Amino acid sequence: MSAPVEFHFDFSSPYAYFTSFRIDELAGRFGRTVAWRPYLMGAALKRSGRPIPLATEAPDSPEKTYLRHDCERTARLDKRAFAWPAVFPVNGLHAARLFYWQSDRSPQGAVELARAMFHAVFGEGRNIGDPNVALDVAVSRGFDRAEAASALADEAVKGRLRDATQAAIAQGIFGSPVIVIDGEQFWGNDRLWMVKRWLDWGGW
Amino acid sequence: MSAPVEFHFDFSSPYAYFTSFRIDELAGRFGRTVAWRPYLMGAALKRSGRPIPLATEAPDSPEKTYLRHDCERTARLDKRAFAWPAVFPVNGLHAARLFYWQSDRSPQGAVELARAMFHAVFGEGRNIGDPNVALDVAVSRGFDRAEAASALADEAVKGRLRDATQAAIAQGIFGSPVIVIDGEQFWGNDRLWMVKRWLDWGGW
Repeated sequence: MSAPVEFHFDFSSPYAYFTSFRIDELAGRFGRTVAWRPYLMGAALKRSGRPIPLATEAPDSPEKTYLRHDCERTARLDKRAFAWPAVFPVNGLHAARLFYWQSDRSPQGAVELARAMFHAVFGEGRNIGDPNVALDVAVSRGFDRAEAASALADEAVKGRLRDATQAAIAQGIFGSPVIVIDGEQFWGNDRLWMVKRWLDWGGW
Repeated sequence: MSAPVEFHFDFSSPYAYFTSFRIDELAGRFGRTVAWRPYLMGAALKRSGRPIPLATEAPDSPEKTYLRHDCERTARLDKRAFAWPAVFPVNGLHAARLFYWQSDRSPQGAVELARAMFHAVFGEGRNIGDPNVALDVAVSRGFDRAEAASALADEAVKGRLRDATQAAIAQGIFGSPVIVIDGEQFWGNDRLWMVKRWLDWGGW
């Protein structure tokens, strides 16, 4: 049994949203499962001294104009619902904590919760950076609001996300999405063609 | 006759080097020619307040480590010679001026000169940011050194590059490579699959 393919991402990333629909099927074609690994990209960027992408540019900067256009074009191509969240970049902290809260109990349940978070933020444009919105999403997936709310404040849950973020940084990960196959990293939704080839050929 | 596909790039960009081998053949499959458009990406980034990619990070930053690895892996996949220039990011100014010097006389000769510049910088790792090295490359393509040297200092040639750079910025271009098909922009060598689809389908 080959090691799982790792899918590192920040919930604030629209490109990770697009990847989230495809990565399990893609890895599965080559007999691989996928380990979903949300982390806080901001911590990795802060460490390297880079700004959060597009956090500081003017609303009409060429970069933002391109990003908007490119994400909308990607959504049309992939036939996905797409809406910009009212707050962008959105804060992925609460969604990631809720993921790790669930991942110890039910890895598959955590992935389903992550899909629901991605749908809320980029399918419906909701601000999951607001903890109440993140809790609404959890409740919509059948979780108890009070339990989920206490998970958000739980030191052990916070520690799980901190550890995951530190582990990603220690691997040299700084973007979203980043796919890792047996230690080999691929940054960007637009590299899924290369991920596929690497899985198919076993590298080159 | 459809409009040419535009290939905007800075000679400092290794990803543009990879694109330079493929773009003419790719466009040609769909009955298109390619207009090569070197420009000074630094001017576009300066205008938007972004740093030159990887110009400020430490040599062992995760971003530089990833870039090095990714370019070398792309070179292996595409079966291209690849060597890092001694100075990186390298300055593409002189190469771009020599391109526009020739483009009025012989568009095809200018493209051949651009290919020779790309080969020098990323095939052989030479510092084409040094005007003497850029002139050596021009001489290797049969140009007269004294004529080429005077072109580098020629106000009309300088103006051609300034105008090309301003035109790229006015189009909203800020990266390298950027492919433009009938006004639609695609940023990155890893988007050639999408360029191909856009040419094939005429958009979506």
